[in-house]
Amino acid sequence: MSDYQENIFTKIIKGEIPCYKIYEDELVLAFLDIGPLSYGHTLIIPKEQKAQIDELSDESAAAIGRVLPRLARAVMKATGAESYNILQNNGSAAHQAVLHVHFHIIPKFSDSGLAISWGSGTLDEQRAKQLVNQMQETLQSQ
Amino acid sequence: MSDYQENIFTKIIKGEIPCYKIYEDELVLAFLDIGPLSYGHTLIIPKEQKAQIDELSDESAAAIGRVLPRLARAVMKATGAESYNILQNNGSAAHQAVLHVHFHIIPKFSDSGLAISWGSGTLDEQRAKQLVNQMQETLQSQ
Repeated sequence: MSDYQENIFTKIIKGEIPCYKIYEDELVLAFLDIGPLSYGHTLIIPKEQKAQIDELSDESAAAIGRVLPRLARAVMKATGAESYNILQNNGSAAHQAVLHVHFHIIPKFSDSGLAISWGSGTLDEQRAKQLVNQMQETLQSQ
Repeated sequence: MSDYQENIFTKIIKGEIPCYKIYEDELVLAFLDIGPLSYGHTLIIPKEQKAQIDELSDESAAAIGRVLPRLARAVMKATGAESYNILQNNGSAAHQAVLHVHFHIIPKFSDSGLAISWGSGTLDEQRAKQLVNQMQETLQSQ
Protein backbone atom coordinates (compact mmCIF):
# COMPACT_ATOMS: atom_id res chain seq x y z
CA MET A 1 0.00 0.00 0.00
CA SER A 2 1.21 3.51 -0.72
CA ASP A 3 -0.06 7.08 -0.63
CA TYR A 4 -1.10 8.25 -4.07
CA GLN A 5 0.84 11.20 -5.41
CA GLU A 6 -0.04 13.13 -8.56
CA ASN A 7 1.88 11.93 -11.60
CA ILE A 8 1.83 12.04 -15.39
CA PHE A 9 -1.32 9.89 -15.60
CA THR A 10 -3.21 12.16 -13.19
CA LYS A 11 -2.37 15.04 -15.50
CA ILE A 12 -3.47 13.08 -18.57
CA ILE A 13 -6.81 12.26 -16.92
CA LYS A 14 -7.33 15.93 -16.04
CA GLY A 15 -6.41 16.92 -19.62
CA GLU A 16 -3.40 18.94 -18.46
CA ILE A 17 -1.08 16.78 -20.59
CA PRO A 18 -2.19 15.54 -24.03
CA CYS A 19 -2.34 11.87 -24.96
CA TYR A 20 -3.13 9.78 -28.02
CA LYS A 21 -6.55 8.83 -26.68
CA ILE A 22 -8.12 5.60 -27.94
CA TYR A 23 -11.05 5.11 -25.56
CA GLU A 24 -12.72 6.81 -22.63
CA ASP A 25 -15.70 6.11 -20.41
CA GLU A 26 -16.78 7.24 -16.96
CA LEU A 27 -14.19 5.11 -15.17
CA VAL A 28 -11.52 4.22 -17.72
CA LEU A 29 -9.11 5.88 -20.16
CA ALA A 30 -7.01 4.16 -22.87
CA PHE A 31 -4.21 5.78 -24.86
CA LEU A 32 -0.96 4.95 -26.66
CA ASP A 33 2.20 4.41 -24.59
CA ILE A 34 4.72 7.08 -25.66
CA GLY A 35 7.61 4.70 -24.88
CA PRO A 36 6.25 1.64 -26.71
CA LEU A 37 7.75 -1.84 -26.50
CA SER A 38 6.16 -2.50 -29.89
CA TYR A 39 3.93 -0.90 -32.51
CA GLY A 40 0.49 -0.27 -31.00
CA HIS A 41 1.53 -0.57 -27.31
CA THR A 42 -1.54 0.67 -25.45
CA LEU A 43 -2.22 1.69 -21.84
CA ILE A 44 -5.52 1.35 -19.99
CA ILE A 45 -5.92 3.20 -16.71
CA PRO A 46 -8.70 3.76 -14.19
CA LYS A 47 -9.64 7.36 -13.47
CA GLU A 48 -9.61 6.40 -9.79
CA GLN A 49 -6.37 7.61 -8.21
CA LYS A 50 -4.66 4.48 -6.89
CA ALA A 51 -1.06 3.38 -7.26
CA GLN A 52 -1.53 -0.42 -7.17
CA ILE A 53 -4.37 -2.68 -8.20
CA ASP A 54 -4.68 -4.11 -4.66
CA GLU A 55 -5.87 -0.61 -3.65
CA LEU A 56 -8.35 -0.21 -6.52
CA SER A 57 -12.14 -0.46 -6.07
CA ASP A 58 -13.94 -3.51 -7.42
CA GLU A 59 -15.96 -1.17 -9.64
CA SER A 60 -12.93 0.41 -11.36
CA ALA A 61 -11.23 -2.97 -11.72
CA ALA A 62 -14.37 -4.47 -13.30
CA ALA A 63 -14.67 -1.49 -15.66
CA ILE A 64 -11.12 -2.07 -16.90
CA GLY A 65 -11.70 -5.82 -17.24
CA ARG A 66 -14.85 -5.19 -19.27
CA VAL A 67 -13.04 -3.16 -21.96
CA LEU A 68 -9.97 -5.42 -22.32
CA PRO A 69 -11.52 -7.70 -24.99
CA ARG A 70 -12.67 -4.85 -27.21
CA LEU A 71 -9.41 -2.91 -26.81
CA ALA A 72 -7.43 -6.07 -27.57
CA ARG A 73 -9.46 -6.50 -30.78
CA ALA A 74 -8.83 -2.87 -31.72
CA VAL A 75 -5.08 -3.23 -31.13
CA MET A 76 -4.95 -6.48 -33.15
CA LYS A 77 -6.90 -4.98 -36.06
CA ALA A 78 -4.83 -1.79 -36.21
CA THR A 79 -1.43 -3.49 -35.89
CA GLY A 80 -2.01 -6.88 -37.49
CA ALA A 81 -0.61 -8.55 -34.35
CA GLU A 82 -1.98 -12.01 -33.61
CA SER A 83 -0.13 -12.46 -30.31
CA TYR A 84 0.05 -9.95 -27.47
CA ASN A 85 0.62 -9.64 -23.74
CA ILE A 86 -1.49 -7.81 -21.18
CA LEU A 87 0.69 -6.72 -18.28
CA GLN A 88 -0.01 -4.79 -15.10
CA ASN A 89 2.94 -4.07 -12.80
CA ASN A 90 2.71 -3.27 -9.08
CA GLY A 91 5.70 -1.91 -7.16
CA SER A 92 9.08 -0.70 -8.40
CA ALA A 93 10.62 -4.17 -7.99
CA ALA A 94 8.02 -5.38 -10.51
CA HIS A 95 8.89 -2.68 -13.10
CA GLN A 96 6.14 -0.21 -12.17
CA ALA A 97 7.39 3.22 -13.28
CA VAL A 98 4.30 5.45 -12.98
CA LEU A 99 2.53 5.05 -9.63
CA HIS A 100 -1.02 5.03 -11.01
CA VAL A 101 -2.61 1.65 -11.87
CA HIS A 102 -2.12 0.84 -15.56
CA PHE A 103 -2.60 -2.16 -17.83
CA HIS A 104 -0.37 -2.55 -20.88
CA ILE A 105 -1.54 -4.23 -24.08
CA ILE A 106 1.72 -5.08 -25.85
CA PRO A 107 1.52 -6.53 -29.39
CA LYS A 108 4.11 -9.25 -29.98
CA PHE A 109 6.06 -9.26 -33.23
CA SER A 110 9.09 -11.32 -34.14
CA ASP A 111 11.40 -8.38 -33.42
CA SER A 112 9.52 -6.43 -30.74
CA GLY A 113 7.15 -6.75 -27.81
CA LEU A 114 7.46 -7.93 -24.23
CA ALA A 115 10.61 -9.97 -23.60
CA ILE A 116 10.01 -12.51 -20.86
CA SER A 117 12.11 -15.36 -19.55
CA TRP A 118 9.92 -18.04 -17.98
CA GLY A 119 11.76 -19.89 -15.21
CA SER A 120 8.98 -22.01 -13.77
CA GLY A 121 9.49 -24.05 -10.63
CA THR A 122 7.48 -26.70 -8.84
CA LEU A 123 4.72 -26.52 -6.25
CA ASP A 124 5.15 -28.39 -2.97
CA GLU A 125 1.86 -29.83 -1.68
CA GLN A 126 2.39 -28.77 1.93
CA ARG A 127 3.23 -25.17 1.04
CA ALA A 128 0.40 -25.08 -1.50
CA LYS A 129 -2.21 -26.06 1.09
CA GLN A 130 -0.83 -23.50 3.52
CA LEU A 131 -0.93 -20.77 0.86
CA VAL A 132 -4.51 -21.59 -0.13
CA ASN A 133 -5.63 -21.47 3.51
CA GLN A 134 -3.96 -18.11 4.08
CA MET A 135 -5.41 -16.63 0.88
CA GLN A 136 -8.91 -17.88 1.66
CA GLU A 137 -8.68 -16.35 5.15
CA THR A 138 -7.81 -12.98 3.62
CA LEU A 139 -10.62 -13.28 1.05
CA GLN A 140 -13.16 -14.15 3.74
CA SER A 141 -12.14 -11.19 5.88
CA GLN A 142 -12.67 -8.65 3.05
CA MET B 1 -8.96 -15.97 -33.22
CA SER B 2 -8.84 -19.71 -32.76
CA ASP B 3 -11.18 -22.62 -32.20
CA TYR B 4 -11.32 -23.57 -28.55
CA GLN B 5 -10.15 -27.08 -27.76
CA GLU B 6 -10.50 -28.80 -24.39
CA ASN B 7 -7.38 -28.50 -22.27
CA ILE B 8 -6.14 -28.81 -18.70
CA PHE B 9 -8.10 -25.74 -17.56
CA THR B 10 -11.36 -27.09 -19.02
CA LYS B 11 -10.80 -30.23 -16.97
CA ILE B 12 -10.03 -28.19 -13.83
CA ILE B 13 -13.26 -26.18 -14.28
CA LYS B 14 -15.22 -29.41 -14.71
CA GLY B 15 -13.56 -30.88 -11.60
CA GLU B 16 -11.99 -33.72 -13.60
CA ILE B 17 -8.50 -32.60 -12.52
CA PRO B 18 -7.87 -31.28 -9.00
CA CYS B 19 -6.44 -27.83 -8.31
CA TYR B 20 -5.37 -25.81 -5.30
CA LYS B 21 -8.49 -23.66 -5.44
CA ILE B 22 -8.35 -20.18 -3.94
CA TYR B 23 -11.57 -18.58 -5.16
CA GLU B 24 -14.62 -19.44 -7.23
CA ASP B 25 -17.76 -17.64 -8.33
CA GLU B 26 -20.27 -18.13 -11.12
CA LEU B 27 -17.90 -16.88 -13.83
CA VAL B 28 -14.39 -17.12 -12.40
CA LEU B 29 -12.00 -19.64 -10.86
CA ALA B 30 -8.65 -18.90 -9.14
CA PHE B 31 -6.04 -21.48 -8.14
CA LEU B 32 -2.30 -21.91 -7.64
CA ASP B 33 -0.06 -22.35 -10.70
CA ILE B 34 1.61 -25.74 -10.41
CA GLY B 35 4.67 -24.46 -12.28
CA PRO B 36 5.16 -21.26 -10.27
CA LEU B 37 7.58 -18.47 -11.21
CA SER B 38 7.56 -17.53 -7.53
CA TYR B 39 5.97 -18.43 -4.20
CA GLY B 40 2.21 -17.75 -4.40
CA HIS B 41 1.97 -17.62 -8.22
CA THR B 42 -1.79 -17.62 -8.83
CA LEU B 43 -3.97 -18.13 -11.92
CA ILE B 44 -7.38 -16.57 -12.52
CA ILE B 45 -9.48 -17.98 -15.34
CA PRO B 46 -12.98 -17.41 -16.72
CA LYS B 47 -15.27 -20.43 -16.86
CA GLU B 48 -16.18 -19.31 -20.37
CA GLN B 49 -14.31 -21.43 -22.88
CA LYS B 50 -12.22 -18.99 -24.91
CA ALA B 51 -8.56 -19.20 -25.86
CA GLN B 52 -7.71 -15.48 -26.03
CA ILE B 53 -9.08 -12.45 -24.22
CA ASP B 54 -10.07 -10.80 -27.51
CA GLU B 55 -12.64 -13.60 -27.83
CA LEU B 56 -13.97 -13.33 -24.26
CA SER B 57 -17.37 -11.79 -23.40
CA ASP B 58 -17.43 -8.39 -21.70
CA GLU B 59 -19.24 -10.04 -18.80
CA SER B 60 -16.52 -12.65 -18.12
CA ALA B 61 -13.77 -10.08 -18.57
CA ALA B 62 -15.47 -7.70 -16.10
CA ALA B 63 -15.92 -10.54 -13.61
CA ILE B 64 -12.19 -11.28 -13.70
CA GLY B 65 -11.32 -7.59 -13.41
CA ARG B 66 -13.58 -7.24 -10.39
CA VAL B 67 -11.77 -9.92 -8.38
CA LEU B 68 -8.20 -8.86 -9.24
CA PRO B 69 -7.86 -6.36 -6.34
CA ARG B 70 -9.06 -8.80 -3.69
CA LEU B 71 -7.00 -11.69 -5.07
CA ALA B 72 -3.94 -9.44 -5.23
CA ARG B 73 -4.46 -8.53 -1.56
CA ALA B 74 -4.81 -12.22 -0.67
CA VAL B 75 -1.60 -13.11 -2.52
CA MET B 76 0.31 -10.23 -0.90
CA LYS B 77 -0.92 -11.15 2.58
CA ALA B 78 -0.13 -14.86 2.22
CA THR B 79 3.31 -14.40 0.66
CA GLY B 80 4.51 -11.11 2.13
CA ALA B 81 5.21 -9.84 -1.39
CA GLU B 82 4.93 -6.07 -1.83
CA SER B 83 5.56 -6.08 -5.58
CA TYR B 84 3.89 -8.32 -8.15
CA ASN B 85 2.99 -8.57 -11.82
CA ILE B 86 -0.34 -9.41 -13.38
CA LEU B 87 0.19 -10.99 -16.78
CA GLN B 88 -2.17 -12.36 -19.40
CA ASN B 89 -0.61 -13.91 -22.53
CA ASN B 90 -2.36 -14.35 -25.88
CA GLY B 91 -0.87 -16.51 -28.61
CA SER B 92 2.10 -18.85 -28.54
CA ALA B 93 4.48 -16.10 -29.70
CA ALA B 94 3.48 -14.25 -26.50
CA HIS B 95 4.22 -17.23 -24.22
CA GLN B 96 0.66 -18.58 -23.99
CA ALA B 97 0.97 -22.28 -23.16
CA VAL B 98 -2.60 -23.30 -22.22
CA LEU B 99 -5.16 -22.14 -24.78
CA HIS B 100 -7.78 -21.00 -22.26
CA VAL B 101 -7.73 -17.34 -21.12
CA HIS B 102 -5.76 -16.97 -17.88
CA PHE B 103 -4.38 -14.14 -15.78
CA HIS B 104 -1.24 -14.71 -13.73
CA ILE B 105 -0.60 -12.94 -10.42
CA ILE B 106 3.16 -13.35 -9.94
CA PRO B 107 4.69 -12.15 -6.65
CA LYS B 108 8.08 -10.49 -7.16
CA PHE B 109 10.91 -11.35 -4.79
CA SER B 110 14.58 -10.49 -5.10
CA ASP B 111 15.35 -13.98 -6.39
CA SER B 112 12.13 -15.02 -8.15
CA GLY B 113 9.15 -13.74 -10.10
CA LEU B 114 8.59 -12.51 -13.61
CA ALA B 115 11.81 -11.64 -15.43
CA ILE B 116 11.20 -8.87 -17.94
CA SER B 117 13.54 -6.82 -20.08
CA TRP B 118 12.00 -3.47 -20.96
CA GLY B 119 13.27 -2.17 -24.30
CA SER B 120 11.05 0.85 -24.82
CA GLY B 121 11.11 2.78 -28.07
CA THR B 122 9.62 6.07 -29.23
CA LEU B 123 6.25 7.00 -30.69
CA ASP B 124 6.13 8.80 -34.03
CA GLU B 125 3.29 11.35 -34.18
CA GLN B 126 2.16 10.40 -37.68
CA ARG B 127 1.99 6.68 -36.90
CA ALA B 128 0.35 7.40 -33.54
CA LYS B 129 -2.50 9.36 -35.14
CA GLN B 130 -2.99 6.64 -37.73
CA LEU B 131 -3.09 3.94 -35.03
CA VAL B 132 -5.60 5.85 -32.91
CA ASN B 133 -7.88 6.35 -35.93
CA GLN B 134 -7.73 2.66 -36.83
CA MET B 135 -8.40 1.57 -33.23
CA GLN B 136 -11.31 3.97 -32.85
CA GLU B 137 -12.83 2.67 -36.10
CA THR B 138 -12.68 -0.88 -34.75
CA LEU B 139 -14.16 0.19 -31.39
CA GLN B 140 -17.01 2.03 -33.10
CA SER B 141 -17.85 -0.98 -35.27
CA GLN B 142 -18.20 -3.33 -32.27
